[in-house]
Amino acid sequence: MRHATPAATVGVVGGGQLARMLGEAAGPLGVEVVASDPTPDCPAAPVVRDQVVGDFDDYETVLELAERADVLTYEIELADPDALQRASEATATPVHPDPETLRTIQDKLVQDRALADAGIPVPAFRGADTAAELRAAGEELGWPLMLKAREGGYDGRGNFPVEAPDDAAEAIAETGPAVVEELVDFERELAVIGVKGDEEVRAFPVTETVHEEEILRELVTPARTDPAVRERAREVAFDVLDTLDGRGVYGIELFEVDGEILVNEIAPRPHNSGHWTIEGARSSQFEQHARAVLGWPLGSAERRAPSVTTNILGDVDEPGAAELSGVEPVLEESTASLHWYGKREVRPLRKMGHVTLSDADSDAETLLARARELRDGMTFR
Amino acid sequence: MRHATPAATVGVVGGGQLARMLGEAAGPLGVEVVASDPTPDCPAAPVVRDQVVGDFDDYETVLELAERADVLTYEIELADPDALQRASEATATPVHPDPETLRTIQDKLVQDRALADAGIPVPAFRGADTAAELRAAGEELGWPLMLKAREGGYDGRGNFPVEAPDDAAEAIAETGPAVVEELVDFERELAVIGVKGDEEVRAFPVTETVHEEEILRELVTPARTDPAVRERAREVAFDVLDTLDGRGVYGIELFEVDGEILVNEIAPRPHNSGHWTIEGARSSQFEQHARAVLGWPLGSAERRAPSVTTNILGDVDEPGAAELSGVEPVLEESTASLHWYGKREVRPLRKMGHVTLSDADSDAETLLARARELRDGMTFR
Repeated sequence: MRHATPAATVGVVGGGQLARMLGEAAGPLGVEVVASDPTPDCPAAPVVRDQVVGDFDDYETVLELAERADVLTYEIELADPDALQRASEATATPVHPDPETLRTIQDKLVQDRALADAGIPVPAFRGADTAAELRAAGEELGWPLMLKAREGGYDGRGNFPVEAPDDAAEAIAETGPAVVEELVDFERELAVIGVKGDEEVRAFPVTETVHEEEILRELVTPARTDPAVRERAREVAFDVLDTLDGRGVYGIELFEVDGEILVNEIAPRPHNSGHWTIEGARSSQFEQHARAVLGWPLGSAERRAPSVTTNILGDVDEPGAAELSGVEPVLEESTASLHWYGKREVRPLRKMGHVTLSDADSDAETLLARARELRDGMTFR
Repeated sequence: MRHATPAATVGVVGGGQLARMLGEAAGPLGVEVVASDPTPDCPAAPVVRDQVVGDFDDYETVLELAERADVLTYEIELADPDALQRASEATATPVHPDPETLRTIQDKLVQDRALADAGIPVPAFRGADTAAELRAAGEELGWPLMLKAREGGYDGRGNFPVEAPDDAAEAIAETGPAVVEELVDFERELAVIGVKGDEEVRAFPVTETVHEEEILRELVTPARTDPAVRERAREVAFDVLDTLDGRGVYGIELFEVDGEILVNEIAPRPHNSGHWTIEGARSSQFEQHARAVLGWPLGSAERRAPSVTTNILGDVDEPGAAELSGVEPVLEESTASLHWYGKREVRPLRKMGHVTLSDADSDAETLLARARELRDGMTFR
């Protein structure tokens, strides 16, 4: 490779906060980003070379990206594997991760089957298209259950706990064709961000993820669990990466159950659980993704310091103009870094930004307590 | 303040690497940058909201920036204080640092006088418009001398050492009206990046700067000198900051002479000597500049780790297309971060990028040796 200008260009389907942070990481490397998004002036727009306005699954839009880029990628599971594949073939622009990997991950039943077939530990699961099938699955797996829409879900959307057989009809009406999983009584949730490069595979240190109402709220790194559990989580993550095709960053969500690890879900892209890496690791997940999809050498995934991230979520009842107050204490905190996603509208529980506290001279518990204070001091109301 | 979208916007006169790195730092804060530059598709263009194409001193260009921004600033001394002042008054958009500070700094004789009048230690100096005046200054200050063009010089441009009276005529023909300074027999050169905020003043740790042929080559932080000298350098830097008007980042270049500190030059903007802060400090000089000019709380200027920066300069004899080879070892080095400025043309000694090595578990000497190896492995030839 030679480092040249005009720069290598990454075309990204999706222009949300992940594309924005990809753009922020790409600049120093001399890499340019062009993102497609249906919403004009998407979050990525102010920090990338250009936005192509178009739907995630619109072929002409993906084709335009492919024509302008050296490599195609995507930051959202709503990208269309067929459109990516066709645009890639029409322009000889490679696409990473492999659209087949995206296709597998898009269907949560297919994803569970692929993992189970590869010998990866996953919660017990069944397919269910009807209330009767859901009730039958409950007979086998026990109640309550976790019901997940097979398609269209990501970041907890489309997931519903189901308490009892009587709730089956209402629940399946919400999801449509679904995968039913045993509701795992986990000690905690963990995540590993993995990176597949041209000839190497790396993984960041294990993060602890704290969810409420299916929405990710907080990250704690290192995860507050046994070193042996962290080691096992990384082993499983490398096994998962082995089953996936194509270069790039993958978010691997895990359950810790009685010291064992089960795989919950995989995202074929940078993931909220990796946001701590921007300050907390030598190369961030976004820098790694840019390097990986371009086929460049990967960066170091080593941790620089204990790090805690708290999401800034819409604490409103109704959509409205995005105006956050209470930010000064974040700006004044020496260990804190603000990340604002540039969304114009705040909605209930919408991800609007995040704050990471990272400090080599501190520990995760101390950082977490302070992060919660800072978060609780901010409001959109 | 409330953190809102549309974001606060900083209008920058100049779209070179300093505006580019300002844009890279502004994104996470939710701050947008619009830069003006005479060269279409300037280095900052791919990572900022927009470029206005126009000369640094063109009033209409500055006015357009002012109309689009919440605050005006500049990344180059070639900005025009009058145009900034007029555009600011016409639009009620504040400009930082104060155009009067820029005016003082633009004229090196006026700068030296202002510092001397404030009791800041500077090398002995005289004004010289003619060869006769230069020779007379040499009688007083001794030979050799440093001759600096009063106007139009920055980053070592316009500076010429003069060996003897016989060279006076040729030298002054190069500079025009000049300031003549004693050639200081320094132990080393140091620099401090200072930040003036709304109600607070901060300074980053002292950096050692290594120049060759008047061009900055390397930064070493912490500077390899006595702690007492570093402390004195910071004292002098705070004294200098006291003399300057307007918020923002200032680069303060210093000489260490027999354990004493003399001020060499001031830049009213982020400065090459502060590039190590991107990885090596909690908040970079670019983040600090964005915060400062907007009147936001300043970030922490604390060092995160020993850090060394080496500039990537054009190692060519003639201008040509910018294509750098030998970058892989930089990308593979776990402690190294590449910064590529996106310039299309390489020229002899042109600043094309830089590499910073930062590592809490290492020391400056070790990092410097490795940085030199990496730099020497890269070439535009």
